[in-house]
Amino acid sequence: MSGRKDSELTDVTLLGNQGTNYTFEYNPNVLETFENKHIENDYFVKFNCPEFTSLCPKTNQPDFATIYISYIPDVKMVESKSLKLYLFSFRNHGDFHEDCMNIIMKDLIKLMDPRYIEVWGKFTPRGGISIDPYVNYGKPGTKFEKMAEHRMMNHDLYPEKIDNR
Amino acid sequence: MSGRKDSELTDVTLLGNQGTNYTFEYNPNVLETFENKHIENDYFVKFNCPEFTSLCPKTNQPDFATIYISYIPDVKMVESKSLKLYLFSFRNHGDFHEDCMNIIMKDLIKLMDPRYIEVWGKFTPRGGISIDPYVNYGKPGTKFEKMAEHRMMNHDLYPEKIDNR
Amino acid sequence: MSGRKDSELTDVTLLGNQGTNYTFEYNPNVLETFENKHIENDYFVKFNCPEFTSLCPKTNQPDFATIYISYIPDVKMVESKSLKLYLFSFRNHGDFHEDCMNIIMKDLIKLMDPRYIEVWGKFTPRGGISIDPYVNYGKPGTKFEKMAEHRMMNHDLYPEKIDNR
Amino acid sequence: MSGRKDSELTDVTLLGNQGTNYTFEYNPNVLETFENKHIENDYFVKFNCPEFTSLCPKTNQPDFATIYISYIPDVKMVESKSLKLYLFSFRNHGDFHEDCMNIIMKDLIKLMDPRYIEVWGKFTPRGGISIDPYVNYGKPGTKFEKMAEHRMMNHDLYPEKIDNR
Amino acid sequence: MSGRKDSELTDVTLLGNQGTNYTFEYNPNVLETFENKHIENDYFVKFNCPEFTSLCPKTNQPDFATIYISYIPDVKMVESKSLKLYLFSFRNHGDFHEDCMNIIMKDLIKLMDPRYIEVWGKFTPRGGISIDPYVNYGKPGTKFEKMAEHRMMNHDLYPEKIDNR
Amino acid sequence: MSGRKDSELTDVTLLGNQGTNYTFEYNPNVLETFENKHIENDYFVKFNCPEFTSLCPKTNQPDFATIYISYIPDVKMVESKSLKLYLFSFRNHGDFHEDCMNIIMKDLIKLMDPRYIEVWGKFTPRGGISIDPYVNYGKPGTKFEKMAEHRMMNHDLYPEKIDNR
Amino acid sequence: MSGRKDSELTDVTLLGNQGTNYTFEYNPNVLETFENKHIENDYFVKFNCPEFTSLCPKTNQPDFATIYISYIPDVKMVESKSLKLYLFSFRNHGDFHEDCMNIIMKDLIKLMDPRYIEVWGKFTPRGGISIDPYVNYGKPGTKFEKMAEHRMMNHDLYPEKIDNR
Amino acid sequence: MSGRKDSELTDVTLLGNQGTNYTFEYNPNVLETFENKHIENDYFVKFNCPEFTSLCPKTNQPDFATIYISYIPDVKMVESKSLKLYLFSFRNHGDFHEDCMNIIMKDLIKLMDPRYIEVWGKFTPRGGISIDPYVNYGKPGTKFEKMAEHRMMNHDLYPEKIDNR
Amino acid sequence: MSGRKDSELTDVTLLGNQGTNYTFEYNPNVLETFENKHIENDYFVKFNCPEFTSLCPKTNQPDFATIYISYIPDVKMVESKSLKLYLFSFRNHGDFHEDCMNIIMKDLIKLMDPRYIEVWGKFTPRGGISIDPYVNYGKPGTKFEKMAEHRMMNHDLYPEKIDNR
Amino acid sequence: MSGRKDSELTDVTLLGNQGTNYTFEYNPNVLETFENKHIENDYFVKFNCPEFTSLCPKTNQPDFATIYISYIPDVKMVESKSLKLYLFSFRNHGDFHEDCMNIIMKDLIKLMDPRYIEVWGKFTPRGGISIDPYVNYGKPGTKFEKMAEHRMMNHDLYPEKIDNR
Ligand SMILES: [Ca+2]
Ligand SMILES: [Ca+2]
Ligand SMILES: [Ca+2]
Ligand SMILES: [Ca+2]
Ligand SMILES: [Ca+2]
Ligand SMILES: [Ca+2]
Ligand SMILES: [Ca+2]
Ligand SMILES: [Ca+2]
Ligand SMILES: [Ca+2]
Ligand SMILES: [Ca+2]
Ligand SMILES: [Ca+2]
Ligand SMILES: [Ca+2]
Ligand SMILES: [Ca+2]
Ligand SMILES: [Ca+2]
Ligand SMILES: [Ca+2]
Ligand SMILES: [Ca+2]
Repeated sequence: MSGRKDSELTDVTLLGNQGTNYTFEYNPNVLETFENKHIENDYFVKFNCPEFTSLCPKTNQPDFATIYISYIPDVKMVESKSLKLYLFSFRNHGDFHEDCMNIIMKDLIKLMDPRYIEVWGKFTPRGGISIDPYVNYGKPGTKFEKMAEHRMMNHDLYPEKIDNR
Repeated sequence: MSGRKDSELTDVTLLGNQGTNYTFEYNPNVLETFENKHIENDYFVKFNCPEFTSLCPKTNQPDFATIYISYIPDVKMVESKSLKLYLFSFRNHGDFHEDCMNIIMKDLIKLMDPRYIEVWGKFTPRGGISIDPYVNYGKPGTKFEKMAEHRMMNHDLYPEKIDNR
Repeated sequence: MSGRKDSELTDVTLLGNQGTNYTFEYNPNVLETFENKHIENDYFVKFNCPEFTSLCPKTNQPDFATIYISYIPDVKMVESKSLKLYLFSFRNHGDFHEDCMNIIMKDLIKLMDPRYIEVWGKFTPRGGISIDPYVNYGKPGTKFEKMAEHRMMNHDLYPEKIDNR
Repeated sequence: MSGRKDSELTDVTLLGNQGTNYTFEYNPNVLETFENKHIENDYFVKFNCPEFTSLCPKTNQPDFATIYISYIPDVKMVESKSLKLYLFSFRNHGDFHEDCMNIIMKDLIKLMDPRYIEVWGKFTPRGGISIDPYVNYGKPGTKFEKMAEHRMMNHDLYPEKIDNR
Repeated sequence: MSGRKDSELTDVTLLGNQGTNYTFEYNPNVLETFENKHIENDYFVKFNCPEFTSLCPKTNQPDFATIYISYIPDVKMVESKSLKLYLFSFRNHGDFHEDCMNIIMKDLIKLMDPRYIEVWGKFTPRGGISIDPYVNYGKPGTKFEKMAEHRMMNHDLYPEKIDNR
Repeated sequence: MSGRKDSELTDVTLLGNQGTNYTFEYNPNVLETFENKHIENDYFVKFNCPEFTSLCPKTNQPDFATIYISYIPDVKMVESKSLKLYLFSFRNHGDFHEDCMNIIMKDLIKLMDPRYIEVWGKFTPRGGISIDPYVNYGKPGTKFEKMAEHRMMNHDLYPEKIDNR
Repeated sequence: MSGRKDSELTDVTLLGNQGTNYTFEYNPNVLETFENKHIENDYFVKFNCPEFTSLCPKTNQPDFATIYISYIPDVKMVESKSLKLYLFSFRNHGDFHEDCMNIIMKDLIKLMDPRYIEVWGKFTPRGGISIDPYVNYGKPGTKFEKMAEHRMMNHDLYPEKIDNR
Repeated sequence: MSGRKDSELTDVTLLGNQGTNYTFEYNPNVLETFENKHIENDYFVKFNCPEFTSLCPKTNQPDFATIYISYIPDVKMVESKSLKLYLFSFRNHGDFHEDCMNIIMKDLIKLMDPRYIEVWGKFTPRGGISIDPYVNYGKPGTKFEKMAEHRMMNHDLYPEKIDNR
Repeated sequence: MSGRKDSELTDVTLLGNQGTNYTFEYNPNVLETFENKHIENDYFVKFNCPEFTSLCPKTNQPDFATIYISYIPDVKMVESKSLKLYLFSFRNHGDFHEDCMNIIMKDLIKLMDPRYIEVWGKFTPRGGISIDPYVNYGKPGTKFEKMAEHRMMNHDLYPEKIDNR
Repeated sequence: MSGRKDSELTDVTLLGNQGTNYTFEYNPNVLETFENKHIENDYFVKFNCPEFTSLCPKTNQPDFATIYISYIPDVKMVESKSLKLYLFSFRNHGDFHEDCMNIIMKDLIKLMDPRYIEVWGKFTPRGGISIDPYVNYGKPGTKFEKMAEHRMMNHDLYPEKIDNR
């Protein structure tokens, strides 16, 4: 049980790469995966992403959010540096908060075909109100479809205290 | 999958509008909607609103609250700047805390016909006691009706620590 | 849907009343009610009461607590200023913490006949130990009876961190 | 050394008064004072006022702030209920944050002629930025003039952490 | 419904007693009970005990913990000062953290025969790691047996953040 | 350098005393002292007192505060149980917040003749505003007189965040 | 002492303006001022700006920071919406953290010629380390030059706890 | 019911041992167990481990995490000092976060054959994103298998607030 | 500039020693020192000690405190494991809080002859009041004597918030 | 005033470099500098470094700390990626906490010849006690020498609350 070998990391081209190219237009093609070595288990992986920024589609004003992405992998797992680049690609993209969260989840489903996934964005306020969209998904026809419904039903019963300071 | 286009935002008249008119008498007509582009999913949208103020119906003294509004959209979604103006319209309105929360929920149901919605107000104390009403709703005859009952049954098992400071 | 009218507040005699009489001997008769205008909904009302004090029945030493009272109203609702006066009436009353919480719940059941109610007291320590009683009730023969059992079963799985400082 | 007698409270007309009249247009005349009984000591009195709201002078949008007022009394002291009414009188007043804080301090100087006073407003953000004005004053020709300069020089070396949530 | 009378407190010999004898060798005999006056209700009583200390059975080094004890009484209830003395009696007792928590629960079951009880110890770290044992019990053949299983299954899904500082 | 002997504690009559008498009318005579054994050093002793309650002199409504008392002893030191009883004696005493803090300081000066002392009260809000008086004293003609002036000048440059919750 | 009049706001062209143009290349020309109406007082104005983002000059990777700007105005004061637009103009600008803070301060000095100013940036970590530059300035030949030196000497004696989570 | 005797601790060779040998290459053989004395009960033991560090398998850069390990013992229990040494053995081991958590759980299952176990790692960020894997296990064919599924389904509905500071 | 060599640690007999002897009667002889290698610098070393316990000299009841010890070394420095054993030796020692802090400081002065030292104890409450003694010392005839006076004068201007929970 | 140009970054060889070589033996040679472009100003740069680990010189056990480094640059500034590599080089280095902090400061003085610098380490506990060394330096013969003395005199008057959890 030694660690990951180079031969297991051939699809990982961005991690540790010097000449990283940062693009600031929406681009899901930058996402990369590696293989799940513990496929016999259901387990969660969560990404905490406090450096998300996009633009308002109507006024072009920058928006800022912390995004929490949690998923149970099936065969493929998203590599974290490529996820970083993907999220950076929203930097000059204009869309509503609710749309961004749905798009991110759909792109990650297309990439990894996970057993379960959820995406929660927590935005900074505009005009005194902040918006927090939450979207999830379980693979249809599996127990994870029920899991998605269960987690939606129990979502955020304890809203964090917000005072805009 | 580019962002929201102008043609999708024709009903949104207030966002980015210069000559915003602030009215401080209760007025649900100021609310506006836009269309849900992800109607195949159930997902939550939460508004954190720490700048709510109304009047006591008996003494006319100002009251202050933070309101948390969470809903699962069906076809229509409430636009956040219009929500801000709607909440501002309680500024000179006199009513009990419990009544305000019920009125807000009923107005948003009438506006959006959402799958699920809940409204939680957390007021500042008067005479050393503060009041926090919580009201919710699921569309009758759907699974969301059960969801409302489930969330009421599990509401606030962990009251936040309050010391009036 | 304008606010509460004076005609709806005729039973509310204490709120805004100048000559309030503070009595410091246990007195449930000071409690007043007003009518629930949203009887078609189940909704929660929570009172946060951090200014509770009573006496130890054995040593006469003052005790201090924060009390959280949550209920789902049926027809009658307790008016908050009268609740304040009722809680003040324990000021010179000697009883165990556990007894006080049961008495408060029973008095409010008798007053309002609510669908559901719970009372949680969190006392300051004596001799390095603090005591937090929690009691609840659902109207017998209704779904709220089950609700009380459900909430008792799930009560306080995450005790707050206490270090007596 | 018994407590304050009624004869010492003849100028206090608002405290405990039932028919309080709430006016929401700027009105410094509502302020009342009582006499300092410990004039031989310098001591501080601080008011924590988290329920301040005014209007933007350009857009008419409501603004919200917590205001901290600290002073060392000379002969007169401001009564707290009258201070509450005075702060409420900004509810429909349009002015910049920086102007409001200066006005409040000047009105209180005029009212009490204190040895020292300072006013600090902490507003909620607009457009992702919040503004916190701080103004102070020491009676000219006394050691309190130096005190004001000293406190200005050492003001807010540790800004509180702000993330607009 | 006046408070506890002296005649109801005849078994309570330690509370308010001047000549309290502190023994620092394990001694469950010091525990005392009083009668439950609200036997028709299920309700929780929680003791927060941040002043627990015992010894390591192998090295004799002192250990420190905060202990949370929660129970639903049947006929007898443990008196809090006697509980304090009982916990002090571990002061010179050498045992593993996991054993101490089991012993405390078993002693309290033997004393009170409660409907339900749980004990959670949170120790300070040794060698960079801290240990938190949690044990519970429901009276066999009652609904409280299921309650114990339910609470074990849902125990501590949100571990508190620990950084050893 | 063994601990305090009984012969050094002859003036301490209340600590550990069973028949403690709790009086709830202002009574500075209950205060007791013991002798300072480290008179060659200046050192601070602080009492944290979160269980203070008194009455409003105008409305008779109970007030609640946390009081922080810090002093540098000279020959005499106040015994903490007697301090507790003294603070309890304000329970039915009616006075303004500002007056209570001045009275407490003056009584302790009379009792102990300390080198330096300060008293800071932090009250719960009434009408949305809370009041925190701070008063201090240094023995005239000593360096502690300057110390008092210095600490007044630097008092509370960082007001704690207050939101009345 | 009514609020700001329109005639006092003629230089404020961006606040409340609908067609705001967001530019994301460094542009100090967007800054606007209004006149200080309380020029006889020294007072502080602080801007809390948690939505700052720029680019690394070497790798082009986005950087994120919260910036705190505090100043004592002389004749001119910076208008907050124009400040927001100015900070947004760093969005596609590549520079070291230390350089950005110096540039911002210099631009604001040029714009307002303030009595005193300081700028503190708190960036998110890269490679496990975060960088917080702090720069200040007092008008040469005035007491504010000494103030700058005094505040530098006492800067950040209590670094906030950082654990990168 | 005295404490653990030496005869019960014969397998515990590391605890209190002077010549502890720290090895920094992955080594599960260092783990030791002792016997569960309360085998008739299901109870949880949690280890809080904030001092975990390993290496990135691709770049060799050190990674840091806090790990939370919770299990319900069957016959054997892991001794905490040996667990410390085991976790230290990852110090020079290169592997992905997700792999480390799976390996730790598998090693502990092999060692103790527990009824239930879960491992949650919370890593510090790289490139602005942090990763938190969570893996669990219940003994197949027992109720603990269902427990594992239940806890996975309810895992982390309230992600902690992360801002990378 | 390699690390400490064994030859520099000959006086350190307790650190890493297996057969540590824990004595619970006051014993300053257990303290050990090592040599300061950076004698040309003034620098602070702080010990955070949250596991202090002693006995009340009058009632024999256990007391608990967190102690903060900070000093500027001269030639000798106290070794931390011996400090731990020294603090454990108060476990069965009866003394007032104020006396314990003075004794600890005097013993450390005698042991190390430091340039500067301070000791701050923060105890848990008895009867609703907690006591925090603070004592310091600077070597007479040096600038550290003035430092002690300066730090006493500026001690604890911001008392931590205490609510006994 | 555009951003840093490539020509200004020729000495920065590690930032953005792919083939970074991580060495885990103490190595100050890895440190790199770049030029200060704002040499006319005194300003602070702070590095927050929560990922420091070294070894105990006596037992070889790993130690963990958060280190805060603050300095006022003269001509040269330390590049942050090289600082990261330097701190990583303590990973297999054995030394006392107090020695590590002194060594780090001395290496950075040698590298940059700064106007002022300070280093504060906050370690995790061993045996229930944690150690926090603080060391600083001002260039001899300049005002920064006095600054160092001033900051030492005012160091850590408010120790953070430590409970080892
Ligand atoms: Ca907040
Ligand atoms: Ca009131
Ligand atoms: Ca609070
Ligand atoms: Ca606490
Ligand atoms: Ca806005
Ligand atoms: Ca915040
Ligand atoms: Ca902690
Ligand atoms: Ca009030
Ligand atoms: Ca608060
Ligand atoms: Ca990085
Ligand atoms: Ca943090
Ligand atoms: Ca954080
Ligand atoms: Ca007590
Ligand atoms: Ca507390
Ligand atoms: Ca240890
Ligand atoms: Ca802590």
